[in-house]
Amino acid sequence: MAQKIKLVLIDLSGTLHIDNSVIPGAIEALKKLRGSNAQVKFVTNTTKESKNILHTRLKTLGFDIKKDEIFSSLGAARELVKGRKLNPLLLIDDAALEDFTDIIDEKQPSNAVLVGLAPEKFNYKYLNEAFRLLLEGAPLIAIHKGRYYKKSDGLALGPGAFVQGLEFSANVKAEIIGKPSANFFKSALGNFSPEEAVMIGDDVNDDVAGAQAAGIRGFLVKTGKYRVGDEITIDPVPAKVCNSFVDAVDMILQSNDS
Amino acid sequence: MAQKIKLVLIDLSGTLHIDNSVIPGAIEALKKLRGSNAQVKFVTNTTKESKNILHTRLKTLGFDIKKDEIFSSLGAARELVKGRKLNPLLLIDDAALEDFTDIIDEKQPSNAVLVGLAPEKFNYKYLNEAFRLLLEGAPLIAIHKGRYYKKSDGLALGPGAFVQGLEFSANVKAEIIGKPSANFFKSALGNFSPEEAVMIGDDVNDDVAGAQAAGIRGFLVKTGKYRVGDEITIDPVPAKVCNSFVDAVDMILQSNDS
Repeated sequence: MAQKIKLVLIDLSGTLHIDNSVIPGAIEALKKLRGSNAQVKFVTNTTKESKNILHTRLKTLGFDIKKDEIFSSLGAARELVKGRKLNPLLLIDDAALEDFTDIIDEKQPSNAVLVGLAPEKFNYKYLNEAFRLLLEGAPLIAIHKGRYYKKSDGLALGPGAFVQGLEFSANVKAEIIGKPSANFFKSALGNFSPEEAVMIGDDVNDDVAGAQAAGIRGFLVKTGKYRVGDEITIDPVPAKVCNSFVDAVDMILQSNDS
Repeated sequence: MAQKIKLVLIDLSGTLHIDNSVIPGAIEALKKLRGSNAQVKFVTNTTKESKNILHTRLKTLGFDIKKDEIFSSLGAARELVKGRKLNPLLLIDDAALEDFTDIIDEKQPSNAVLVGLAPEKFNYKYLNEAFRLLLEGAPLIAIHKGRYYKKSDGLALGPGAFVQGLEFSANVKAEIIGKPSANFFKSALGNFSPEEAVMIGDDVNDDVAGAQAAGIRGFLVKTGKYRVGDEITIDPVPAKVCNSFVDAVDMILQSNDS
């Protein structure tokens, strides 16, 4: 018998919502989950916006989410930059910059490259600036290396394409902060053991394989960036494959009741 | 004893010139080489400009080069697109477009992605358009996959970064047309055997290792994109390492005289 689930780690974009559309039934399912004994945490690689903006947006969409329940790779990046006293060139979206303004000195030369999802900065000028810093020995830090993400009009390139390209041209290896890094999942667990937790997400690599590599059961949802057959591309396969977050919650509640 | 050198394949950018500056002594060295019995051909991955523009620029710099001596990956790309009746999205520089205008139908949907060096098109909008075509099964064709090239103000990202990024995100493998593809070198050889030829270039991978993989001796010059230690990054090492094109020509003439 599987252990009772005491902590549910939940991805945001593609799992609870896509842009400003809520996944049908997700708000109610989250309520139901909160009514059980399980604790919830939101584990996101979203780097498009600061924690404030993200939290406000989720509230506006109707989700009952507290700011300190959001565990984001952007926040982890902030801690890393602060802890190592780095002054990185920021390839991150303008809406996420407020999380860094107090720890970055734009008047000083950059000594690292930090990459998030930043479509407006993924152009030759910025990328070449980053490339030249890497040639001088600056570390390449990727908030995450997602291959693509789901937009309302289809899949779109994630920061992974640009991180991979910089790695190739500068012949360096990026340090990955967010999912699927095992350190990131371990921090998200807090005092829970991996066996007590599940991770629900739409990214078979970053959410599911990443969590499972850290000993956490991974539930793959067929929304967001999910593409047919994703579940057979990882080994071990996902602990569960669910139509959506709504199904995933039902499976958890049933499992805890049995 | 090494075989006499009957064909000299010469890279252009970084070997004979950098942007609009001539490598010191290169014009005279080329004259000297033409005075010997060896035939010369210019083998270039330059995709920044059409053959006409490139040829005019080299003439203006003072080089005695005939248009039909230039063997370019851009030209090979044109032949491939024409031969396969493809209608690619062109991530190539505006100055190179004239080589494709008569074989591309912009009104029809694209069914392939062709990537050259195109700083102005290496932005999120174009790259995402390319990514979505690749997801639909369009082939990814790279005119070359150079990691970086030498500009007058330093090294700069080559198309390789963007090809690699697209390969990663779309989970595909690009077909490479130019150097270091063995097919490209074989075409450049014409009726000569690989043992009768040498390739002179500043790119240890694309020029030297590529040529040597096709059985052609590779001479690495320490100009252009050369970085200290490049010669020990490939196996086998370059047949010769020369300070510049001038030295390379002297070595060839001495070798043929001995």
